[in-house]
Amino acid sequence: MTTICVDVMGSDREPSVLLEGVAKALELDPQLKVLVAGDASVVEPFARDHERAEALVTTEVIAMDEHPASAVRKKKDASIVRAASAVRAGQADGLFSAGSTGAVLTAATFGIGRIKGIRRPALTLAAPGISGKKTVLLDCGANADVQPDVIVQFAHMGRAYAQVVLGVDEPRVALLCNGSEETKGSELALSYHKALAEGNCGFVGNAEGTDLLAGTFDVIVADGFTGNVALKTIEGTAKFIVSRVKAAAGESKRAGLGALMLKPALKTVAGELSGDEMGGAVLLGLRAPVVKGHGSTSAEAVASGTLACARAARGQLCERIAKACEKAE
Amino acid sequence: MTTICVDVMGSDREPSVLLEGVAKALELDPQLKVLVAGDASVVEPFARDHERAEALVTTEVIAMDEHPASAVRKKKDASIVRAASAVRAGQADGLFSAGSTGAVLTAATFGIGRIKGIRRPALTLAAPGISGKKTVLLDCGANADVQPDVIVQFAHMGRAYAQVVLGVDEPRVALLCNGSEETKGSELALSYHKALAEGNCGFVGNAEGTDLLAGTFDVIVADGFTGNVALKTIEGTAKFIVSRVKAAAGESKRAGLGALMLKPALKTVAGELSGDEMGGAVLLGLRAPVVKGHGSTSAEAVASGTLACARAARGQLCERIAKACEKAE
Repeated sequence: MTTICVDVMGSDREPSVLLEGVAKALELDPQLKVLVAGDASVVEPFARDHERAEALVTTEVIAMDEHPASAVRKKKDASIVRAASAVRAGQADGLFSAGSTGAVLTAATFGIGRIKGIRRPALTLAAPGISGKKTVLLDCGANADVQPDVIVQFAHMGRAYAQVVLGVDEPRVALLCNGSEETKGSELALSYHKALAEGNCGFVGNAEGTDLLAGTFDVIVADGFTGNVALKTIEGTAKFIVSRVKAAAGESKRAGLGALMLKPALKTVAGELSGDEMGGAVLLGLRAPVVKGHGSTSAEAVASGTLACARAARGQLCERIAKACEKAE
Repeated sequence: MTTICVDVMGSDREPSVLLEGVAKALELDPQLKVLVAGDASVVEPFARDHERAEALVTTEVIAMDEHPASAVRKKKDASIVRAASAVRAGQADGLFSAGSTGAVLTAATFGIGRIKGIRRPALTLAAPGISGKKTVLLDCGANADVQPDVIVQFAHMGRAYAQVVLGVDEPRVALLCNGSEETKGSELALSYHKALAEGNCGFVGNAEGTDLLAGTFDVIVADGFTGNVALKTIEGTAKFIVSRVKAAAGESKRAGLGALMLKPALKTVAGELSGDEMGGAVLLGLRAPVVKGHGSTSAEAVASGTLACARAARGQLCERIAKACEKAE
């Protein structure tokens, strides 16, 4: 049995949506146990109704717009803080939350702790690619300001993730930049490039925004500011295209019929880009797997995020990343 | 008559592709004259064959991978350098090039000159939006490193562009960031936010990557590093979706027929996002309109870029931006 602690509070959605997702996950994975953290009125009835669920009653919630560090410090009984403590205490093997990125990051970093030697955890996604090959993208938004030596750690973690999760032997690592030539970049990006080139981390050069979904590289690293802008731009572009196709479908019978026939394909690609398929982003660099769902998550996304977290715990993702990073030192 | 100087060298494509585009532009706009800059063997036959075309014979080319500043300094007879001089001398009212961004930027800045008070020109695009409203995006890649006071100038220029070209009375300006909350951002983005808030430039707050194609704001400013990553991410995402739809169409008859029926709509949306429809990006902040086409441009894109440049010259875009920026001081 693998136990995942699910924080059902603090997202943009009602706790009932998250619990619906947890129920789905329990149904799909008979080896899964959950510890649901949240208000008593919400988690206790759920635990009563579900065999492999236990309630972790908490009384506080960290809201989306609160300052993460001070909120985590002050609200000792916040669902995300208690969830992290439960993982540290061994009551759960991993954590899923769709709360504020800053709050999850802070609570998990202090509560669960970092892998030895890792300075900053990074929000990590495996993006689909045209070539059929996935690309590990980090940092998608955990750290807006990143030093060159931390970018090198991201490269090592991303490489370990590509080896462990995607089964790539020699992952090719690139830096997200404003041009493929090595002379391109802001002063900051140039300092990243230099550190990566000296970092013995599989670095092969610069990637551009066009490479993110092409499958050209196995790993693309960026600071959390740039990575977050890129990730949300992917999301926005997919939405734009879907809205244009819908509008066209409403304008002519022919296009309407075409859209209907293509619907399964369009739904699949939209899903691939929504992050739901991937089950949210993993916070890499911590001692246990922490999966962060989208703030406006869905029951499906909560289910796949919880299952992804359980798979990561079973596959000993964090232990293997720790080993890979240790070897790279 | 409006004369546009077209640099047919220095792109990733053969000069013949660019000349095909110029011929199209001449056909579509009877009030257009062109000055084609390039090798004698290329531009002289074209000028002989086309009534409203004149040849500007040059002997050097700046390649994509050359260092822009030193190449512009050394290659006095490069097509882009001579093209900029022709605009300064009044032989042409605007300039189109699909050469290296750095070379076009450097040659045009020194050759044509900046609008009084403007420190850095910015690569500017009008992106389509879900709401039907366009969003002016700058800087798309002219300046990787940007100071906070220059971001404020970008805001003023973008605002003037939205007023002059898109007809928006009171443009709403936002900063591309990793979160909508004002506390979000890297140290650099926070310094931009502060300068914009004090800049009296219509600033309303932070935008996210999801806002770029939503039509939420009239203008979104970014440094050229971030803007370029975002722009190329849009391009890459569109390519990814098109490739997935094509793959699905090949897998089942039903999806294949659907794709066929939706083809016009998909082509329209791909065109909207390719930058070709917009005719390339305008280098805002110079004394004459300079349109920069994609390095791997097409004849269609060259035609629409040349026509867009002619429209900007006729509409006195640069003079009006100079006035709007002067008033804003």
